Order: sequence, then C-alpha cells, then structure tokens
Amino acid sequence: MTLKGIGIVRNAVKQAPGPGYNWQGIVSEIVVDSSLTEALGGLEGFSHIIVLYWMHQISTTQLPTKIHPQGRPELPLVGLFATRSPYRPNPIGKATVRLLERQGTLLRVEGLDATDGTPVIDIKPYLPEYDSVTNATVPPWVTNL
Amino acid sequence: MTLKGIGIVRNAVKQAPGPGYNWQGIVSEIVVDSSLTEALGGLEGFSHIIVLYWMHQISTTQLPTKIHPQGRPELPLVGLFATRSPYRPNPIGKATVRLLERQGTLLRVEGLDATDGTPVIDIKPYLPEYDSVTNATVPPWVTNL
Repeated sequence: MTLKGIGIVRNAVKQAPGPGYNWQGIVSEIVVDSSLTEALGGLEGFSHIIVLYWMHQISTTQLPTKIHPQGRPELPLVGLFATRSPYRPNPIGKATVRLLERQGTLLRVEGLDATDGTPVIDIKPYLPEYDSVTNATVPPWVTNL
Repeated sequence: MTLKGIGIVRNAVKQAPGPGYNWQGIVSEIVVDSSLTEALGGLEGFSHIIVLYWMHQISTTQLPTKIHPQGRPELPLVGLFATRSPYRPNPIGKATVRLLERQGTLLRVEGLDATDGTPVIDIKPYLPEYDSVTNATVPPWVTNL
C-alpha cells in the first residue's frame, strides 16, 4: 500500500505548533498536481471538503500506545486510537475545511490543521448526510478539550 | 509514503456491491492487530468512530478524471475529487460508523461500507465539534443521490 502525493499544502505555519493551536483562522492553499485539473471539476460546488494528508514531520518509530490527550497530564491516559494525536501507525490527518475558492488546481481553504509543505493524499466532498452524525456521544474528558 | 495495515474488516459482503448499496444495516468486525490492544483503550467511550481503509479491490491504473456519480448518466459529469467514487489516486475510504462494542482488539461497528478482507489503516474517534459542520452546502445533484 503505497501512497502518491496529489498536492501540497502552502500556508504560513512552517513549524508544527503545539497541541491546542487554533487553526480556525488559518487560510491555506492546496496546490494540486497540474495533471489533476479535470479531476477537481465541480468541487467548487461544495462549501466544505475533507482533506486527507500525510503528517510528514511526524516520526512513527517508537510510538506510544497510550497518551494523555494533547500532552495534558490532567486528562486520562488513553490509547492513541482514542485520540487525534498525530503519533499513529499511519500518520494520516483528516480535516474538514471550508473551501473558499478553486482556481484550476489551486484550492484556498480555511482551518486546515497542517503545516506548510504537508503532502495531500486525497480530497473528498463533505457530504453532511454521510459524514456527520446526530447525537454522537463522546467521553467526559473530550468536553474538557 | 507507505502504509501499514493495522487491522482487517470482516463481514458478510464478500464482493463489492454496486454504487448506492445500503450499508447502514451491515454489521462488521474490525479485527485489529493483536499488538495494538493498549492503543485502543478508551475508544469504547465514543459512540462513533472514523475508519480509514484501503479499497484493495480497486484498480487505480487508468483512472477516469471525470465521472457520472454512482455511474448514473442523468447526474452531471464531474471530477473524481468532487465524488466519493472509490476510483481515486489513493484508494482510501473514510467512513463514520457506530461503534457497537469493543472486545480487546475486536471492534463491532455498524454501517461500514467496506467489503470483507479490506485492510484498515487508521481508526480515529469521531469528534462532533471537529468532524461535523453546520450549514454545509452541496450542489443540487447531491440531493438527488
């Protein structure tokens, strides 16, 4: 299972900030490979897209199995799959972001929590009926994040 | 960028059904690698999880760039990234599913749209505040799906 980069993130965040960083106001450009112009046709009809990206700055050797979410010792020690920590066997991030604009293979998005230079591996339209859940519940510690 | 399988899907769907198949009632087991028991700790506190999986039955050579969604000719011809078609440069599926039960490294989930034998590459907790969007809009053809 080998991934191909389909594009790259460009923004002002050059170094990975700590957990809890507020990405909401960050505008990024996703520069998609020029061979994929046609494959993006119609994406601009969606207000939001899902971006899968490869967290290339993350080392996946000697992974912890349990962590305190966001490195906060007051939060319970839970398994890495119960968190959104970037330290996971496959360092794939999944973000749902607002699509501000598409110009050919350039996508301007807001709120993408990826640093400058991050490889993008997939882009999907956000479909509320498929991607969102009503009445989902989370454990108490999540409400303290 | 090389992926490691972390588990495998087991269910009654042995062959990929056509588009539009109703996966909602399908219960699957995700059999996670036995080395990852601790890494799943606490996941059972979430009602829903996000599963990333590798659509191993999909050929990614000679990809179309534009398609009629779900192979329905009455729907507009759009770029593959404007659809959830499995035919994409990196055949990664992303599903949000109900977590019925965890027993060690066995996860019972409902509504996972992956066939029996599909490799799982990541599991994340579903966080409504991060993963869902209020007032997202989609193009008119999506409402006809």
